[in-house]
Amino acid sequence: MSHQAAGFVLSKTRFEAFSDGVFAIAITLLVLQLHLPSGASAHSPAAEQVHVLLDIWPQYLVYAATFATVGVMWVNHGALVHHMDRITHGILVANLLLLGLISFLPFATYVLAVYGLTRPTIVYYGVTLTLISLAYLFLQRAAMAAHPATRRPLSAWNWVGLTLYPAATLIGLISPLAGLVVIGLLAVYYALPGNVQSAMLRS
Amino acid sequence: MSHQAAGFVLSKTRFEAFSDGVFAIAITLLVLQLHLPSGASAHSPAAEQVHVLLDIWPQYLVYAATFATVGVMWVNHGALVHHMDRITHGILVANLLLLGLISFLPFATYVLAVYGLTRPTIVYYGVTLTLISLAYLFLQRAAMAAHPATRRPLSAWNWVGLTLYPAATLIGLISPLAGLVVIGLLAVYYALPGNVQSAMLRS
Amino acid sequence: MSHQAAGFVLSKTRFEAFSDGVFAIAITLLVLQLHLPSGASAHSPAAEQVHVLLDIWPQYLVYAATFATVGVMWVNHGALVHHMDRITHGILVANLLLLGLISFLPFATYVLAVYGLTRPTIVYYGVTLTLISLAYLFLQRAAMAAHPATRRPLSAWNWVGLTLYPAATLIGLISPLAGLVVIGLLAVYYALPGNVQSAMLRS
Amino acid sequence: MSHQAAGFVLSKTRFEAFSDGVFAIAITLLVLQLHLPSGASAHSPAAEQVHVLLDIWPQYLVYAATFATVGVMWVNHGALVHHMDRITHGILVANLLLLGLISFLPFATYVLAVYGLTRPTIVYYGVTLTLISLAYLFLQRAAMAAHPATRRPLSAWNWVGLTLYPAATLIGLISPLAGLVVIGLLAVYYALPGNVQSAMLRS
Repeated sequence: MSHQAAGFVLSKTRFEAFSDGVFAIAITLLVLQLHLPSGASAHSPAAEQVHVLLDIWPQYLVYAATFATVGVMWVNHGALVHHMDRITHGILVANLLLLGLISFLPFATYVLAVYGLTRPTIVYYGVTLTLISLAYLFLQRAAMAAHPATRRPLSAWNWVGLTLYPAATLIGLISPLAGLVVIGLLAVYYALPGNVQSAMLRS
Repeated sequence: MSHQAAGFVLSKTRFEAFSDGVFAIAITLLVLQLHLPSGASAHSPAAEQVHVLLDIWPQYLVYAATFATVGVMWVNHGALVHHMDRITHGILVANLLLLGLISFLPFATYVLAVYGLTRPTIVYYGVTLTLISLAYLFLQRAAMAAHPATRRPLSAWNWVGLTLYPAATLIGLISPLAGLVVIGLLAVYYALPGNVQSAMLRS
Repeated sequence: MSHQAAGFVLSKTRFEAFSDGVFAIAITLLVLQLHLPSGASAHSPAAEQVHVLLDIWPQYLVYAATFATVGVMWVNHGALVHHMDRITHGILVANLLLLGLISFLPFATYVLAVYGLTRPTIVYYGVTLTLISLAYLFLQRAAMAAHPATRRPLSAWNWVGLTLYPAATLIGLISPLAGLVVIGLLAVYYALPGNVQSAMLRS
Repeated sequence: MSHQAAGFVLSKTRFEAFSDGVFAIAITLLVLQLHLPSGASAHSPAAEQVHVLLDIWPQYLVYAATFATVGVMWVNHGALVHHMDRITHGILVANLLLLGLISFLPFATYVLAVYGLTRPTIVYYGVTLTLISLAYLFLQRAAMAAHPATRRPLSAWNWVGLTLYPAATLIGLISPLAGLVVIGLLAVYYALPGNVQSAMLRS
């Protein structure tokens, strides 16, 4: 049993493959949560079809904001894992927590599609994103515990996620649309040249 | 922190794994959007079952056309990424945009399955394909900006996508079936020997 | 442009990754097509819940038969690709056709779940499996055309797929349950020691 | 045909890629089985929306317990495969059986979401987990048969799975909530430092 005695934890290759898989699937499943209203059928007249397809614009906005958010998280996850040279137990647990919350996002999107853009649904969505930011923080802490070279103060990315997602949630309590727009702008902000890179350098 | 100072962006391996995952999932999710009419149940007589299974042929056509189109895009994406040696920020953003639009295709397919082959649904589908062609163009431009050796005029593939998808959309305004057939023929055209290869050589 | 002049087609790594992805997703999506009857709700009494969960046994049988069939096809696909050293255009097209049909299987499963085990549904399912066998044959031919060393007469696996799936379809015309059992037994046959291996040696 | 004569079975790389894919997809599909009650619509008042989103807490519990359980199984699967140097026919068949049962878990989750936390639904869920433990045992036996160096008595992990999942099923017959809590605690137990690692060392 000597070859098993070294406290082996998962290989980084499979850790990355599994994480990439969950990110890719969660981001792609989002589309299944978009829905036409229940009356839609092959008997709907063309004018009504056009009206409905334009009328569900909040679903497009939620889809775009969530896709961009998960995409940015995947990029940051990749940069964080890049610096790891072994996968400890703490990293595994924090990563499963993070993936479990990211996989939950399509449900928050579905809630928004069913109930529409209301105070409860945007708060539900914002709380989910806030929990994801927290799980990401746990993963970073676990990574730093295992790899002292990566220890450093909280990065800008953390502060943004840990302050602006709760803020967007509170804004959503007043105006659901404003809350959603803030979440979407956060994703756009990360997509600007320099921001992802600097976030990645610091993550 | 010196090992983090080099403007690291994502490794090509994870970039490819994530992109392949999204392509594979989007193409496979299409099938979930095929539907029997709402009256279908275990109480439907056999003759009606046969009738319904033949009667939903436009769904088969949409499935085949979309599967072939995504498949061809995946092949071209593979050829394009093959020439990249580093993943810049611009490539990342253009790629997320492209993947977000490709992941949206199952919704356009679902709209076609629910409303049937009508003017609004084929235009919706054609506009989605046109946006995908645009996103692919952005990705190509980002790739060329990072890899000067790949700079060259727009390839035949671009012109086809950027002119024939809008054309098919307009044709769909007159005859929805004709529009869908044009989109299907485009995929068949790419599947002919020589065309994929020459498109790939130029892409 | 000289580095692009060699008629490059896709790398084997991405070809395998994409194919594995589609196989894994199609096999996992099957479960989404299992359904409780439409009356099922939180108000159903416990005795009825037990009754329903046992009563949908044909869905379990279809799930098991399809999962085993796709699993065996994935194993054979792996053995076939193992012998390829380059991915030609013909291989790409035949592979997309095969993956498109395998991705379609969850719909045939859904038809069986909605309409029950009837003559039309088992014929529909059997025809899909027969088309998959044909597409696999095309892929084999394309592989042999590119790799002369792999040329040989049709293997036992081909004859089984190309004769027994149509036979099971015809049997299903007389007795749907018998047709489904034949399809299930085919998968069990491949799972016996020696059969997969000999099929793989010949494939 | 000499290069095919060596009794080739699947490469470990594709075996891992396919298994990782199925684990990642099954764990991510769970979210699609969460549902709002059938009356939910854009016309539901905000107070009712809040009430419903809190009221479906058993679905959150099932989601968390199942996600954690599949995550832990994936970790153990990774540790087991790590010790394999070739994929025999027996390993392939046992692995397909295991993956087929893990892919079935979203249906057991869906049954719980539709019928609620009742005696039949928790027993159904517990029996599925027990069958998964059995399939994992088969996979271990197949691995040991092929790799004598890994032979050893049943590990703690096995005993836990093979005794506590049936126990939780029986507890669920008396109190469904208690049964679900036991299953959740099992996943939490594995997540404690030392337990996964020692399970992995022994698996």
